[in-house]
This record gives sequence, structure tokens and C-alpha cells, in this order.
Amino acid sequence: MEQRDSERVPPTLGIGMVGYAFMGAAHSQGWRTAGRVFDLPLRPVLAAVAGRDPEAVRAAADRHGWAAAETDWRELIARDDVQLVDICTPGDRHAEIAIAALDAGKHVLCEKPLANSVAEAEAMAVAADRARERGQVAMVGFNYRRVPALAHARRLVADGWLGALRHLRLTYLQDWLVDPDFPLTWRLQRRHAGSGALGDLGAHIVDLAQFLAGEPLVGVSAQLETFVRERPLLAGVSAGLHASGGPGRGPVTVDDAAVFTGRLASGALATFEASRMAPGRKNALRLEINGERGSLAFDLERLNELLLHDHREPAATAGFRRILVTEAEHPYLEAWWPPGHGLGYEHTFVHQARDLVTAVAAGTDPVPSFADGLQVQRVLAAVEESAAKNAVYTPVPAPAPTPRAERAEAQV
Amino acid sequence: MEQRDSERVPPTLGIGMVGYAFMGAAHSQGWRTAGRVFDLPLRPVLAAVAGRDPEAVRAAADRHGWAAAETDWRELIARDDVQLVDICTPGDRHAEIAIAALDAGKHVLCEKPLANSVAEAEAMAVAADRARERGQVAMVGFNYRRVPALAHARRLVADGWLGALRHLRLTYLQDWLVDPDFPLTWRLQRRHAGSGALGDLGAHIVDLAQFLAGEPLVGVSAQLETFVRERPLLAGVSAGLHASGGPGRGPVTVDDAAVFTGRLASGALATFEASRMAPGRKNALRLEINGERGSLAFDLERLNELLLHDHREPAATAGFRRILVTEAEHPYLEAWWPPGHGLGYEHTFVHQARDLVTAVAAGTDPVPSFADGLQVQRVLAAVEESAAKNAVYTPVPAPAPTPRAERAEAQV
Amino acid sequence: MEQRDSERVPPTLGIGMVGYAFMGAAHSQGWRTAGRVFDLPLRPVLAAVAGRDPEAVRAAADRHGWAAAETDWRELIARDDVQLVDICTPGDRHAEIAIAALDAGKHVLCEKPLANSVAEAEAMAVAADRARERGQVAMVGFNYRRVPALAHARRLVADGWLGALRHLRLTYLQDWLVDPDFPLTWRLQRRHAGSGALGDLGAHIVDLAQFLAGEPLVGVSAQLETFVRERPLLAGVSAGLHASGGPGRGPVTVDDAAVFTGRLASGALATFEASRMAPGRKNALRLEINGERGSLAFDLERLNELLLHDHREPAATAGFRRILVTEAEHPYLEAWWPPGHGLGYEHTFVHQARDLVTAVAAGTDPVPSFADGLQVQRVLAAVEESAAKNAVYTPVPAPAPTPRAERAEAQV
Amino acid sequence: MEQRDSERVPPTLGIGMVGYAFMGAAHSQGWRTAGRVFDLPLRPVLAAVAGRDPEAVRAAADRHGWAAAETDWRELIARDDVQLVDICTPGDRHAEIAIAALDAGKHVLCEKPLANSVAEAEAMAVAADRARERGQVAMVGFNYRRVPALAHARRLVADGWLGALRHLRLTYLQDWLVDPDFPLTWRLQRRHAGSGALGDLGAHIVDLAQFLAGEPLVGVSAQLETFVRERPLLAGVSAGLHASGGPGRGPVTVDDAAVFTGRLASGALATFEASRMAPGRKNALRLEINGERGSLAFDLERLNELLLHDHREPAATAGFRRILVTEAEHPYLEAWWPPGHGLGYEHTFVHQARDLVTAVAAGTDPVPSFADGLQVQRVLAAVEESAAKNAVYTPVPAPAPTPRAERAEAQV
Repeated sequence: MEQRDSERVPPTLGIGMVGYAFMGAAHSQGWRTAGRVFDLPLRPVLAAVAGRDPEAVRAAADRHGWAAAETDWRELIARDDVQLVDICTPGDRHAEIAIAALDAGKHVLCEKPLANSVAEAEAMAVAADRARERGQVAMVGFNYRRVPALAHARRLVADGWLGALRHLRLTYLQDWLVDPDFPLTWRLQRRHAGSGALGDLGAHIVDLAQFLAGEPLVGVSAQLETFVRERPLLAGVSAGLHASGGPGRGPVTVDDAAVFTGRLASGALATFEASRMAPGRKNALRLEINGERGSLAFDLERLNELLLHDHREPAATAGFRRILVTEAEHPYLEAWWPPGHGLGYEHTFVHQARDLVTAVAAGTDPVPSFADGLQVQRVLAAVEESAAKNAVYTPVPAPAPTPRAERAEAQV
Repeated sequence: MEQRDSERVPPTLGIGMVGYAFMGAAHSQGWRTAGRVFDLPLRPVLAAVAGRDPEAVRAAADRHGWAAAETDWRELIARDDVQLVDICTPGDRHAEIAIAALDAGKHVLCEKPLANSVAEAEAMAVAADRARERGQVAMVGFNYRRVPALAHARRLVADGWLGALRHLRLTYLQDWLVDPDFPLTWRLQRRHAGSGALGDLGAHIVDLAQFLAGEPLVGVSAQLETFVRERPLLAGVSAGLHASGGPGRGPVTVDDAAVFTGRLASGALATFEASRMAPGRKNALRLEINGERGSLAFDLERLNELLLHDHREPAATAGFRRILVTEAEHPYLEAWWPPGHGLGYEHTFVHQARDLVTAVAAGTDPVPSFADGLQVQRVLAAVEESAAKNAVYTPVPAPAPTPRAERAEAQV
Repeated sequence: MEQRDSERVPPTLGIGMVGYAFMGAAHSQGWRTAGRVFDLPLRPVLAAVAGRDPEAVRAAADRHGWAAAETDWRELIARDDVQLVDICTPGDRHAEIAIAALDAGKHVLCEKPLANSVAEAEAMAVAADRARERGQVAMVGFNYRRVPALAHARRLVADGWLGALRHLRLTYLQDWLVDPDFPLTWRLQRRHAGSGALGDLGAHIVDLAQFLAGEPLVGVSAQLETFVRERPLLAGVSAGLHASGGPGRGPVTVDDAAVFTGRLASGALATFEASRMAPGRKNALRLEINGERGSLAFDLERLNELLLHDHREPAATAGFRRILVTEAEHPYLEAWWPPGHGLGYEHTFVHQARDLVTAVAAGTDPVPSFADGLQVQRVLAAVEESAAKNAVYTPVPAPAPTPRAERAEAQV
Repeated sequence: MEQRDSERVPPTLGIGMVGYAFMGAAHSQGWRTAGRVFDLPLRPVLAAVAGRDPEAVRAAADRHGWAAAETDWRELIARDDVQLVDICTPGDRHAEIAIAALDAGKHVLCEKPLANSVAEAEAMAVAADRARERGQVAMVGFNYRRVPALAHARRLVADGWLGALRHLRLTYLQDWLVDPDFPLTWRLQRRHAGSGALGDLGAHIVDLAQFLAGEPLVGVSAQLETFVRERPLLAGVSAGLHASGGPGRGPVTVDDAAVFTGRLASGALATFEASRMAPGRKNALRLEINGERGSLAFDLERLNELLLHDHREPAATAGFRRILVTEAEHPYLEAWWPPGHGLGYEHTFVHQARDLVTAVAAGTDPVPSFADGLQVQRVLAAVEESAAKNAVYTPVPAPAPTPRAERAEAQV
């Protein structure tokens, strides 16, 4: 009775994770849960986690359910029981680790933004292309594509509910830097984080704009600002977003806020704003898309809802409808709870794990790929270039010819 | 490096679960996750799950991560590796299983409503009292007390933000019975479910009213209705809320909707409505409380939000504020994600597991207790009695002298 | 150039108004504006206003644009230039003035509730029936039927968008009595106001329930409560809702709150709550109707919006849509501003004036009639009777055979 | 009794209005109502309205309550009974009429935008300065400053509730041009309208940004777009926003949409978007301001509400509060209805009339002045210049040294 039916148990996929702070905790929950909720072709096994501090990484392994702990990410990559390397470090380590893992024959999931520079991202995309020929997959962790409401929004756009797109407006506002005494964590230092609100928050909304529209940004005009230019030096080690300051102060070397306008390939106008200085906005990724036939709107603080306006309806009964994206017909929802029993933030990581495991098993290209991550990186670079040149409209180099859009449709 | 520090690993608590449909899946997620997110004094181990169908229970065990499967709940109770029995069956089995488990020395978690009758609930409460003297705990699964926003609401009421209460209004609306061809599942049969919307949804809002107010209902005036009096007989076995009908039809023997007004001990007026016939309302548990100093409002479809109005503020800047209940200062949130990164429905079961494990380890009375479940049962019985007597105001017998309110404060 | 084209100018309708406080100001705005916005068959002329205090009534006439002022309502009725008498006094004067005006051959508009007792309302309905045979019209001022969103809601129900109705829930919450030192104005004295929140607010939601459903309430079960039983005696004269208290205290002789459940003729269940003790709720008339095919929801604090859920739509794109009721296709909106340029509270009185003037010119029965007002009065009486009898379900006498429902459709 | 007390009746102010379409109707309602609601030092008299078509202007005079009609605006200006000229024509006539009226010794109210070019606006501001020395006032009709919620927002900013400002984001979206067959009205022709969405909608949000912040924009980076480049020629005369097309097509010579970012003098970042191509957005002027101490948000489609977040509050109870701006303590509300009884769009014109009449009587500078209108015009010109130069950041010339900000505070 207690013997499992071995024929029904899928083969395993050993996961090795590098980094275990905020993102590490979220990814762990994704790996632990995906196979319990979805029918997966491979069962993820939390093989090992790597971090520099022996005590801390061991505690993290114990807490999050990883079987082993490593203090050197190279050893983690080398483990036989690790087939997929999940990179949750700050951005300055992404390229080195991802390329090493790919070259070692491992599948890779890399947190966003893909890298701190276009050059790094290009090298990573090249490594991913090489690895792909060996059957390896490489995905970048733009997890918000896995919010069911946003996956559903993409379907609606692709199905023509909006017609030709005219406007996209996306803001991503948080408020954890409003306090001028919040200390100088790695996220506020260019050499670790690459940029500030731009890479942290702006990368998400750039990716979502391109994902939802199914087409790339072709140019941007931007302004950046750092409102608080010095902050207290960090007292001790910081993990995640919670930190406290020490006595001295040091320079903030990244942006506090980025505002930019852009054009999509089709001519649609897009506006973007990313800031960590908006009091009361905790995780306010809000977006609206207007097309010739209708409009869509979304707010991450109410992530189970999608607003849809169908402009073809009679005026007397038309209006933005609040779709509670919790029906079995909605993306990812076939596996969860009855209608109206909403999901949360962390479910995006469960869905990401589901999609990645599925791609690994099927040998298909995962979405978003490293090439997609590179494309976002190019937009971020164009934003910084425009901001440095008095906001002049700055073209974004076209993405590689890989049929990104088609692949985007394939998976969800 | 890979050896866990045994001194830091807490002792285990073996869980045995009876039933594995919708509630079983949700409870499993709670047991799997609680120890990964919270610092628990005992680590829950998913020891065994019981169900009548051998194939199905084995598959459920495999899916949800239970080490063993049993086809007889009595064998599950008898297992040495089970210290806590979690009852997720329809209500007609609750009393028998719970009393047997308690008498066998096990801790018990029982889904709500506690039972299908006051008599059963009384027997369960007596068994729980006996077991309590042996150090066992017994909790009833009113999981919505563990929505952070509602736990926070209770704190605000207890702290006097509203002053003396005047009004409570609670509705719990769903729409899965609107279709007259939805089949005759166990939830529509009195002998299995006890009642319809009343016990399924009304029990939750009765419990929440008493929990949030910190005082019991003392009387009710009620009307019940069954709009669709015959439904297709069920084709095959049904699990959870999804089912399809067969050729014949049979009588619906429970209510489709319940409306009632009531009085709390302090004199506050309360209104209740429970229905599964409200198109577009998927899981709309909505409540508002008005006191002499302020008001609170909540909607389960936006479960990360609590609305608070402080009537002592100057009129020019007063208004209902939308508290995003995702701050580290909020109940249960110390262990989750940064502000604005919302939780979902299933987190209530993680929190329930946390609170129950904590009570087991500390030897304290869990909340809500079987006595609390009995009190809800008495209210439901008074509702049915009033409805049978032309809605005449019908007193609810006073709860046992156990200091329920104080205990309610203790845990959250 | 400055000569008006006399052929195009409609004949006038002389209005005489009794009372000039809050309701008088609102009605004045309605009479002044209706002919400027709508094409009316008769142009309302603000002939005279009556009130007891000579100074005050003269000032009111000057402020609100009435050509003359009278200190005796009998003299106002007697004026040749007054063809329609508009009664804005407290409820204890309604019957006497309305019957006198009707018997004097004048059309009548009477504020709601129609009277303070069923007996008075019956006498008024009889007088209206007599007058009707002489070609006079009599309307009761349930102005919320003229909120465009609610007139539109009635159309949608009548057109079958909801199918058979199952649930209505209506609350009307205000907070101006929360302060226990708000003084004892006429609205808090039974002999002047008839009842408290019940007649003031409850009358509106009873009327709306019957209007929107197109069928009467047939029975109710109710509880009433007076939370603050003594209040400061009034210092000086009070006009409207603003007042200040003097040194002594006197008993509140009306209800602070009324909660009741009811049945419509079709069997639909309805719940009602009226209270002036709900902090933060300023004018929160909220309602929702659930039928077998869809649902409607409305909030008077957002009076330009109507929520509609069409249950026949596919689940993936269904949801409550927010209809901004500002389109030319919506009731009354053909005469106002472009879409999205919302209306306010006082527009209901402009629309009421329009509908009444139209009925006078056409010789048709206005809606809501005195018979409709009497029917609401019977519901209020049944509420009080039920509350006095332990909330027992209390039938409401059936309305007179006048085809109320058909007339209700006719006008909007 | 019927004699008015002549000592209490204020002297009159004769109004002459040029143009009588959408804006003319709204202004008429403002002039008719202001003195009935507010205690004004002068009573506005609707003396005469001017328009080119004799039949139409006579009908408009009759409808809206103007005593006389003129077919030549010069004759209207020349009338002795006209002391204030209210200009409601398309923008290409503003300068000529306003300067003539000012030079003729009349006070002037001119609809927004002040003119179709900076040169015209400068000439108007010079004429206003000359007239000011003769005691005349000149105001530009940015009526949204008179939405109570926005006037209240300005007070809160001025009182320091937000601290130093960091972000402003303003969008103004409508959808009446989504249909490619909407005809080529004057609003779509550069020679009449000056610009498209930019001047029509963008002018409002530029003015509001500067009004709310209390400081000017100093530079912008912009993109403009015309999505539908040809439209049907107009069939017959068009009045207002409603029109139908004829057989031929002609070029649209204005923008459909404008997106721009900007800087305020203090360094705050601002984003703007104006479009008439956003399906489902009827009059969606939405704005949010983030400062170091708090945030404000507003939506014109819910104009009685203002959202305020106070960042100094404890996290556990902080949140955006919905202030229902209907309290006697709120701007303009002392004269209207009880709390919660909301106002509508047209009330902004009543308030505008009130403020202008008050300024005329007191001999104070009205706000917004022609200088304020000129400043907005300079921003619009900079937007067009930037858009023509690849979105490069384009400075806005500093406003004249008149202490605009202080005056702005004075009035509300």
C-alpha cells in the first residue's frame, strides 16, 4: 500500500541554485511546489544551493529544503545530481555563472535582468545558442509573464481582441527608497546592480510591453534621476530588501527613477516609468494597452484581475470588465483552486518552474530566452544612452532574427 | 557540508490526512509549506493520507507528497507515525473520525463546519475537552481567520480602533450553482452536507463575525430558499467542486441561499447572506463592520487589502484607506515577501498549519477550538429553526464559559 | 434680434414650493435647470415659495430664484400663477398640504416618504385618484429613480438581461448621527419624521427594490435599533442636516438603524439595511441584484457607474463591467455632456422635473405615483410591525390593482 | 411680501458670451447657477450671446437663458449691458476677440487653450496687463482647477502633505476618435484648433501639473502621433463633439496623441500622455503626485474622490485613503449638498463663475490668468518643438516674474 507505483513517477530533474536571498526563497517555493500542483514530465529535485557564507547557506538549505549546500558555485555546477542551474545572485555574477553552467552542459534559469551590460548579455546569448545545439535550455526569469492575468492578456492581444495597438503605458512604482536613510545595499551600486530602478523595475515593464505586444521596442527617449545621492553605508550583511544603515555615507551610483517614451515596431506609442520613490505604491506594476478595437489594464497589486474593454460592444452596455482570472479556462489555472480563490506573487515562480521543466523535457526553446533577455538589455542601454544625450530619441538595435514572437505563443 | 546541523532541526510532527479532494489539496500545500516559510517548533511530516478508493488515494499521496496511503481511516489513526489527524471529508464523517482520533490520543484538525448537527458537534467538543486534559489539541478549520487582512482586522477591533460595534454585514456569494444542470453532488444533499449555502458559506461568515467582534451572536432571524429544487444525478464520482451530470434528476435537499439578521451580545446588529446563486460573484466573501469610532471593510476576492476608516480624523482628509496587508508588521507577513507582493487563498492553510503546530508544541488551546465550532453550529441550527418558524427571532444558546475571546487574542 | 420667437416658446407651468431647506434648494435647482437642458413641452416658472418665517422665506426666494414668497402654504396653493405644488416639508405636513393642493385643482409633487403613516398615505392616494379624474397629476419624489445609472438598470432588468431574479441586496448607509452630540432635530422625532433611518433612507431602497425588480415586496422580517437614545435639545432653528445642540437632552423617538429581509412577489430574496451610524459612509446607497442570467451593482457614491455581469458570456472573458452611464444612449443623457463628463446628485431633481412636466403636459400618470408611495409606506409599516413582533415574517398588503409596473416602463 | 429687499440684492454683472456649442452650454449653466448657490458680491446677468448663424444663436439664447442674441461678436462687446465677455469659440478666434474686448474695457473669460500660438498668447497677455491697470480682469478657463478634489489637492500640496515633489504623472485619455470614420471637424484641423490632443487635452494636464505643484515646467521631451491621417469631410455644420461625415476625405492636420516627459523647476520628473484614441476611456484625466512624505491620486471619471497616502503613518495602518470630497470643509462645498451627495462635471463652470465674479468685485487678479495661459502655451510649443527634433529635451522659457504661485494660493 505504501509503495509508490514507480511506473507513474516521472524521472527527476536535479536543480542547483546559486544565491538564496529574496529571489532564492521565491525560486525554492517554485521548485518545491510545481510538481505537486501540475502534472510535470520531470519531477524537480532540490539538489543543492550555493552561497559564500557556510553557516548561512547551510541554514538556507535547511529552511528551503535543499538537500545539500555548497560554498562555491563552481562546485555546485560540477555536481552530478544537478542538471539545471538556477541563478539568483546580483546581476554582476550572472554572466560568469550562466556561461560556466551552460558550458558545463547544464540547463540554466537566470534571474532578470539578464546581465549588467549588453556585452555580458551578448556573451550569455551566444553561450545559450551553443548550448541549445547540445539540447540545453536557457531561460531568463521574467516571472511576471507567468501571472495568469498577464498570460491571459497576451492571449487576448494575440487573438486580436485589441486590433492594431496604439498605446501602451506601463509604470512600476515602489516606495522602499523614499526614506533617505535606507542604506546603500548592492542594489544601489552600479558595479553590482548595473542600474537602479531601471534594471530592477524597468526591465520588467520593458519585457512585459514587448511580450504583451508581441513586437519589440525600436527606440526610446529617456530621463533618469537620482533624488537621494548619498546614503548610509550598510551595517553588516544585507539579504534581500531589508537592511539597516551604519554610521558613514556613500554615493548612490544608480538611478532612483527612470521615465521614458518609446515606439514599438508597429508604430504604437509606449510610456514607461520605474521608480522606488513613490510613497504608498508597494509593488505597483500597472499597465494599460489601447488598440483600435479595445483596451486592457492590469495592476500587480491586484494580480488576479484583468480589465478588458471591448470597443465593438454597444455603447449602452460597454465598459471595462473586471475579469477575475481564476477560471479553469485561464492560463495555469487548470491546476489550482476553484474560481475566485486567488493566487499570489510566488505562484509566478511555480509557473516558471512548470514552463521550464516542460521545455527541458520537450527539448523546446523556453520563453523568455536569453535572446529575449538580451533584447531587454539593449532597450535598457538605449534608455541610458538617451538619458545621457538630452533625451534624444535613441534607436534600439533590432533583435536577432530568431522568431521570438512565435515562440512566445507556443508555450502558454 | 551536506550534513544538516541536527541541533537546529526541530522534532517532527507526523500528519495523517483523511480525504484528499479540494480541501485535501489545500491542506497538503499548507503542511508542505509551513515549515519552509515559518520558524516552527515542530516540522510537519506528511506521513499518510486515507481514502476509500485505493487507486485514487495512492495517486493523491503521490501527487501531494504523502509518504503513505491508507484505505481505512481507522488504520491511519492507528499509525505510530501519525500524531495529528487532519479531517478533510464531507461533514457527515467529521464526528466519527474526530472522536476516534482524539480518543486514540491524536491531535485533530477538522474542516468546517465542525459537524452536520449540534448533537454531533457537542459530542466532538466533549471529546476535545477530554483530550485536552491529556495534552491533545483540537482545532476547527475556519481558515479565513488566517487571511492576514482579517487577522489584522481582528487586531484593530481588539485594539479599539472601531470603539463599540454597531453594525456588521457579511455576505458570501458564489455562482457555481446558477446553472440548473450542475449535478447533484454531495454538497447538495442534506445527509452528507448537513445544509447548503448555510453550512458551506454561512458557517464562514458566522465564524468571522464572532471572531472579528470578539463576542457571540445571541439570536437570529432567518429565511432560507432553494431556487433549483431538482438537479441531474451525478455521473460517476465527484471530487471537489467540478462535476458533471448524468441522465436522471433528483431532489436538492439543502438550501441554495440563506439570509439572516442577528444580534451580538453587545447589541450590535448583524446581517448575513450566503448564496451560491449570484452570477459573477466567484468567492465574494465581503464584510464591513461599523463602530462608534470607525469602520472596516474586506473582500475575499481582494484578500490582500483591508479598508479602514478612522472617524476621529478631520473630515477634510478622512476616508477609507486601502491598507495593502503585505507589510512585515502585519500578521503572518514577517515570513513572506516584500510589501506589495501579495498572497493567495492557499496561504490561509499554511498559516493554519503554522498556528496549529505552534499550539501543539506549546500545549496551548488552538483557536478556533471545537467549542468555537460548536458555537457556530448552534448559530446555524438557530438559523434553520428561525427559518422554519416564519423568521421569528430565535435565541442562540450561550457558548460554554471557556474564555474564548481571550484565547482568540492569544495566538495571532 | 432680441425678440424671442413666440411660437417656439412653450407655455409656462407655474410652480409653488412649500419648504426651502435642503430639499427645497435641490428642487429649486431642478426647476431652474430642467427647461434649459431638456426640450420641455411646458416651461417651469418658479412662481412662489412658502415658509413660516417671513425673513427666511424671503431670503430663500431671493437666493433660489422664486418670484414671490408666502408665509402660509394655503395662500401659496391659492395663487393663480401656481399650477403645481411641490411639497418639501417634513413628513408630518405632507398629507394636509398635498390633499389641499389636489383638492384645489393643482398638480402635486410630494417629497418622500409620502407620509408618516399608512392612513395618511391612503388618504393622499385617494385624493390623487380623485384629482386624476380631473386631469391632475401627483408624483412622489423618489428621486433616485432618476439617477441615469438606475434608470438604465431598470431598462436592463426589464429587457431580461438578468432573467428571473433571485437576490436583491440594498444598503443605505450614512454617518451623520455617529456623533452622540448631534442634536435632536425633527428627523429624530417620531411625530415629525414618522420614523428614522427607516423612512429617511429605507424608503429609498424599498422603492428602488420594487422599481428595479418591477414587482412588489410581499413580506418582511425586521429588526430596528436606536443606539443613541438621548441627544442634546436643538439650539435654535435647524434647516437641513446641519444643526448644533443646546444644553438639555431629550429622547430620540425614531430608529437609528433598520435591518430587514424580504420576499418579492416572484420569490426573490431581498435584504435591506438603513443606518445613519456607519462611519465613513456618507451617502452609501449600494445595491446588487442577481438573476439567473446576470447581475447588476450600483453605488450612489459613484453614481455615474453601473456594474453589469452577463452570465452568458464565456468564462474566460466574463466579468463585472463598469458602464460609465454617460452615453447619449443612456436615460436622460441625450441632453447633457459628452461621454465621461459625469453628473451629480442634484441632476436627479432636474430629471424629476423633466418627467413631471412631461406627464403634466401629456396628461399621463406620473411615476412614481402616490399609489407607489403608499405601497412603500405599507412596506415600512410592515417593517415596524415585524420589528415589534420579534422579527416574525410579516406580509405586506398587495398594492391596488393599478398596473403600476406597466406605467413604470412607460416613462423612462 | 413679494417685494425683494433691494438692499440685500447685489449689483449685477452683465455677461456676454461668444460661441454656444458644448462649451457655451456649460458656461451658461455656470452663469445661471453660481449666484443661486454661492453668496456672490455681484449677480451675473446673462445679457447676450453671439454667434454667426441668426437662427441658431437665437435658439441658443432662448435655450440657455440669454436675454439677447447677436450675430457679430463686435456688437456684443459694444453692448452697454455687457461688462464681461466670455469667449467659447474655437482657438483661432480667441486672440482677436479677447484683445478687442479688453481694449473695449470689458473683463474677459477665455476658454482654454488660451490661443493657437505663443505669439497670439503673448499679445493676449500684453492686452491683459494693459487692461489690468484699468481694473479689468482676464481669466483663462482651465476649469478643472475648480474640481473640488483638485482644489483640495492643491491645498494639501501647498500645506506640505507631500513634502518635496518627486514624480507627477498625468494622462488624459478619451476615445471619440477611435472610429476612423469620425469626420474632420474643426478640432482636427490645425488652422482652427492649433493642435489636436495636445491642445485639447494636453493643455489641461500641463496646467494642472503646474497648478498642483505650484511651480512651472522647465523642459520637455516629446513624441506626437497621428494614427488616422485622413477622415471623412464634415457633412454640414458641426457643433460640439457630435458630428457625422460626408462622402469625401481630407487630411487630419493635428496630432491624435502626445506623450512627453518633463522637469519641474524643483527637479521633479513629470510624465504626460494625451490621446483621443483610447477605447473605453471616456474622460480619463488621471493624475498622481509622489512627494517625499506622501502621494495624491485623482481620476476625473470619479471626480468626487481624491486619494491621499500619508507616508508618515505607521506601516500597519497606512494606505491610500479615498477622500470623498463632499464635506463642507472642502473647497466650494460649503454651498452644495450634504456629504456624499456628489457634484458633476458642469459644477466646475459654476465654481469658475464664482471665482471670476469674486475677482471682478474685489479687483484682484483672477487665477489662472492670461499669463498662466501663456505659460501653458509655451509648454505646448516646446512639446511640438521637441517632437520635431527627435524628442530632444527642450527648455520652456521661464514665465514672467509675476508671482503666479502666490496668487494661485490666494483664491481657493
